[in-house]
Amino acid sequence: MATDVRRRHPREMRFTLETIGFVRSSLVRRELAPRQGDEGGARARLELGASVHDGLRGIVPGDELVVLTWLHQAQRDVLLTHPRNELDRPLTGVFATRSPDRPNPIGLHRVRVLAVADGALEVEPLEAIDGTPIVDIKPVLAALDH
Amino acid sequence: MATDVRRRHPREMRFTLETIGFVRSSLVRRELAPRQGDEGGARARLELGASVHDGLRGIVPGDELVVLTWLHQAQRDVLLTHPRNELDRPLTGVFATRSPDRPNPIGLHRVRVLAVADGALEVEPLEAIDGTPIVDIKPVLAALDH
Repeated sequence: MATDVRRRHPREMRFTLETIGFVRSSLVRRELAPRQGDEGGARARLELGASVHDGLRGIVPGDELVVLTWLHQAQRDVLLTHPRNELDRPLTGVFATRSPDRPNPIGLHRVRVLAVADGALEVEPLEAIDGTPIVDIKPVLAALDH
Repeated sequence: MATDVRRRHPREMRFTLETIGFVRSSLVRRELAPRQGDEGGARARLELGASVHDGLRGIVPGDELVVLTWLHQAQRDVLLTHPRNELDRPLTGVFATRSPDRPNPIGLHRVRVLAVADGALEVEPLEAIDGTPIVDIKPVLAALDH
């Protein structure tokens, strides 16, 4: 089946993500971090590399953003999990959960912009730990995301 | 600045995304595809590779999902753009827009599940063109995404 799918789409199967910046946060350990931003996410700073600063033009305090991160401490070989690590819940496919453990551990975080500095954004709430690589930032679209 | 950011976070700067499946859609050309799913996105099929089928366990018709794709026809060296290619709108940083052209062209698509087959999901609406690689699927969380 994997072979069939690939045969019909004979193109690249791997892509390289480039880190565009890092999360700076008082949350430093995964096991102490909340599972979602609205469960106690911290105020955090998104520090972007100089080569991509232009990409922030137009972002202002009050904006709602979706931050995409690379959850660098996740396990990529997990396909089934007990939701929220509650063992009495049935084993569920990772694509039906927000578990960080999944084949491509991309984190999605909805945040509000508090301040914009040179090449950095102050945001909240964010559950990603300090040092988490950032790979993309997008505006929330009302029609699309609500 | 890029060097400073990196010095404080001395870790890997690149990550490899593995394609987990492909979009099958009647939309075949980027220039004819709508910009967002709610602007005329099609019914589409998400075909996953056999090695990740277990990850779908628990997804049922009616579920609302966020599909993450790799927008393989995007330009990665673009940081400023006229929103929606309307030239009378001011140049804006790509992180303040949903333009596919950006350093890491990850597409975010909110869809509803119509049917679940063996290793595949029928969904709508989806503006991604036929053959677009899929890199992750997540459930919409009411508290987080609304």
